[in-house]
Amino acid sequence: MKIEMTPIGTFYTGETDIPRHWTVSEARGRIEVDPAYQQGLKDIEAGQQIVVLFCFHKSREFAPDLLVQKPPHKDRPFGVFSICSPRRPNPIGLSVLRVSGIRENIIDVENIDMIDQTPILDIKPHLPPSA
Amino acid sequence: MKIEMTPIGTFYTGETDIPRHWTVSEARGRIEVDPAYQQGLKDIEAGQQIVVLFCFHKSREFAPDLLVQKPPHKDRPFGVFSICSPRRPNPIGLSVLRVSGIRENIIDVENIDMIDQTPILDIKPHLPPSA
Repeated sequence: MKIEMTPIGTFYTGETDIPRHWTVSEARGRIEVDPAYQQGLKDIEAGQQIVVLFCFHKSREFAPDLLVQKPPHKDRPFGVFSICSPRRPNPIGLSVLRVSGIRENIIDVENIDMIDQTPILDIKPHLPPSA
Repeated sequence: MKIEMTPIGTFYTGETDIPRHWTVSEARGRIEVDPAYQQGLKDIEAGQQIVVLFCFHKSREFAPDLLVQKPPHKDRPFGVFSICSPRRPNPIGLSVLRVSGIRENIIDVENIDMIDQTPILDIKPHLPPSA
């Protein structure tokens, strides 16, 4: 079974030193959503957090030697499903970003950990488990 | 640009009355991961929460009339990127589930809001924004 996705937009940033994770990032960038989807952004507001799903488009293809990996900032190897490594069976990344502004089809975001020109797959509301 | 994904496993449940959202669900099910990926589960433990990405495999294809939708439990329409509707440009779902048990390639989970036989795309650790 294969599932085919098409990006809804692209992420851009001028930052060259991208933090390893959104939980520790203060870097900025912007998501340019395909104008065909602009109406779907109408309830996103500056100040809120959004969940952004994206494609690790620069990662090499997954192979069994990547099932267990030692993250650079950890002291031991972990199973791939317990870490946020970009080298995973399906190359989907997830970051929770703060919206610093929105106009037309462009969302300015903070806390970014994606590289320039990352394809964006989806944007969802950020909900606490107790919501 | 097309991005192709292959499920890492399948979700099963005997529940017939699936809650509308994981934030309000006490229903249970299990994720059966492809045995080829079993080693990647080694650090998942009962009691923890995991982020599960899955495919809304029963949703109809996205169309422009779905850019703004009124969720059943809301009093007004919202842009698709501010709601968790299964009818979205890329049919990726996200649920935060509690692990009630794990053995070999099978994860027992609670708080489920997916239907039986949902294809699973990824499992990630659940991290608070302040982590």
